[in-house]
Amino acid sequence: MNITVQKFGGSSVADTEKIKNVARRVSQTRKKGEYVVVVISALGDTTDRLVRLAYEISPHPRERELDMLLATGEQISVALLSMAVNELGYDAISFTGAQVGIVTDGAHTKAKILDVKVGRILEELEKGKIVIVAGFQGVSLDDQITTLGRGGSDTTAVALAAALKADACEIYTDVDGIFTADPRIVPEAQKLDRISYEEMLEMAATGARVLQLRSVEFARNYGVVMHVRSSFSESEGTWIESDERMEKAIISGVTDDSGEAKVTVFDVPDRPGSAASLFEALSKANINVDMIIQNVSEGDRTAISFTVGEEDLEKAQEISETIAGELGAGGVTVDKDIAKVSLVGAGMRTHPGVAADMFNALAENGINIEMISTSTIKISCVIPAKDVNKAVSAIHKKFGLDKGVVMHA
Amino acid sequence: MNITVQKFGGSSVADTEKIKNVARRVSQTRKKGEYVVVVISALGDTTDRLVRLAYEISPHPRERELDMLLATGEQISVALLSMAVNELGYDAISFTGAQVGIVTDGAHTKAKILDVKVGRILEELEKGKIVIVAGFQGVSLDDQITTLGRGGSDTTAVALAAALKADACEIYTDVDGIFTADPRIVPEAQKLDRISYEEMLEMAATGARVLQLRSVEFARNYGVVMHVRSSFSESEGTWIESDERMEKAIISGVTDDSGEAKVTVFDVPDRPGSAASLFEALSKANINVDMIIQNVSEGDRTAISFTVGEEDLEKAQEISETIAGELGAGGVTVDKDIAKVSLVGAGMRTHPGVAADMFNALAENGINIEMISTSTIKISCVIPAKDVNKAVSAIHKKFGLDKGVVMHA
Repeated sequence: MNITVQKFGGSSVADTEKIKNVARRVSQTRKKGEYVVVVISALGDTTDRLVRLAYEISPHPRERELDMLLATGEQISVALLSMAVNELGYDAISFTGAQVGIVTDGAHTKAKILDVKVGRILEELEKGKIVIVAGFQGVSLDDQITTLGRGGSDTTAVALAAALKADACEIYTDVDGIFTADPRIVPEAQKLDRISYEEMLEMAATGARVLQLRSVEFARNYGVVMHVRSSFSESEGTWIESDERMEKAIISGVTDDSGEAKVTVFDVPDRPGSAASLFEALSKANINVDMIIQNVSEGDRTAISFTVGEEDLEKAQEISETIAGELGAGGVTVDKDIAKVSLVGAGMRTHPGVAADMFNALAENGINIEMISTSTIKISCVIPAKDVNKAVSAIHKKFGLDKGVVMHA
Repeated sequence: MNITVQKFGGSSVADTEKIKNVARRVSQTRKKGEYVVVVISALGDTTDRLVRLAYEISPHPRERELDMLLATGEQISVALLSMAVNELGYDAISFTGAQVGIVTDGAHTKAKILDVKVGRILEELEKGKIVIVAGFQGVSLDDQITTLGRGGSDTTAVALAAALKADACEIYTDVDGIFTADPRIVPEAQKLDRISYEEMLEMAATGARVLQLRSVEFARNYGVVMHVRSSFSESEGTWIESDERMEKAIISGVTDDSGEAKVTVFDVPDRPGSAASLFEALSKANINVDMIIQNVSEGDRTAISFTVGEEDLEKAQEISETIAGELGAGGVTVDKDIAKVSLVGAGMRTHPGVAADMFNALAENGINIEMISTSTIKISCVIPAKDVNKAVSAIHKKFGLDKGVVMHA
């Protein structure tokens, strides 16, 4: 059974006309003889609208109830898309995450998929139906409705592709693929034909907004080939697959992320376990910490800085202040006016000097670096938020990405 | 365990301010030590909005997908109400129909409740929580989402009250109770303090829009005491309970219904089985037929007329035409411009002359009667739609209902 999983984001199903377009696309694939499983997100700004309603009711809605609320967005889309496909004369059936058995842990608003049951989907595919599954949502072991966090529909799609052993997982979006930089910032940015899971992971982690990080991890772990492409054209987008199959680019792209904030706990007694107690507490609260820097001690005191998503800042600050009190630290400061600019490329491993070139590009433009973090295929710098566009353009140009991606064996 | 079931309709939860009002009302009941189960409908016009979306996509959406779509309306309300109750410092938890186990048959868009599992509700009540259940929806034995038809939330509430052996099932609405006639048509209409299940059934069946017919049947069958009252005041509404407990009114009220249409199959060969084959076909299509009249035959031919809800007219006409062809009948005509006006009262059984008085009231006002149907406690007349308000006022006055309900032992 040749199965293709196709995922369409909220902008692809923003209104009833667009839903009909998606229905046509999906039906065409079915017509070619492929078995099709479709994953879709909520219509346009539905999720934002629901979140606003919740906050009108309560400044701190319980996360279990938020999930109950938000899961309706995708349920609406799948029902409407199913009707649109049926209207074209193809047979479709829609399912919620709970109905198909997308089983998750109980971490409401950011649940992780534990298991995907495919029996019900296979049964319907065998009847010739196009199966339409609500993205972004699942059901916990004690039968609570859960959601997977923003962009979670990508993960739903990849998890289904893995469980169904699908030929490919196509991610339809409003851009043509993955670019060397955000084209709204760098008009000369180039579309990448292929990229490795590792590079895509780093790009997603550092601000490329096209794919949810977790979906790429899932794809890598289960060897699912992803294809990110436009829902408005037939042209090929960007293939994401394992490293061995492709030539390596020295630099694949420059990414930016203005959605983080910096927390600094200062004047911390420098003894073993200080950092551990802080990050343990943050982790227990389900807060994802991105970059962590600990200064060289001055005497017996040190400072610990870290970045978190802005949506977690309030909670992170609260926890940090409690722990700072317990540790006898001086206090906590926060800074929301930061941005992270990153350079990603698998070829970086074997090409020394990349970091130096990047720092030079920033220095030449008078941009101050506040934090640095590196991996074998990525360099990230935290800079003032106001400089982010200038920084991306400067780095993109420095590495000649506007002239095309440089390959090496 | 003293359990009260409280049901709030769509107009009681039309916006976030009204949801907060409901939360206050519910919390007050909990504060008095009662265990509270709340059933709510979709916010204001949500259901209508979703139906419009569906018809933008497809003129004939599949009923399974319609249920998938419409069930989201109540899911949104329960999540928001739960947040609002939590915000007041009380502990609440929301459930979909599927989650609590409102098990139904598979008749999408008008499913019937087969079973109500209360384990999960009792578990949460015992923890002191206010349990909030999505009305109008359930889950079929093969795990499809179903809905119970317009007004189905009343039935959800009564079914839960029965299964939980609740003290009472309070139906909160935007009117003060059950009236002797629609106060928008007859300003002198009087609120009834009590009414029997049987009378309420006839009133609901003949057009009183306050309660869904099925909920009253359910209440009667399981002996659930219902209390229909205003969500905007503290005053008592109308109690609905068994006949024995109360004095009997000769006439309880006049009802009207403009939502039906008349289908006539004319020139039908008058032989056994003709009517049976027609109504069997309609029943198989899940169409509720209300009144049925068969004319005295002229020679070997007759005419069969019946009324159905306007929403079923198209389907009913189609089926009637097929059957008319099979029977060799002359053809089918339909008339949407009709209304039904009815007189309901348990005392009617022992008071002859009620029918004659009603027909006189219509005749005195020059209103033509097209069909008549009676039961022991009800008389219904089909009249031209344009005369409905005049007819209700005339009958209401004829029986002196504007001066209060006449009781007898």
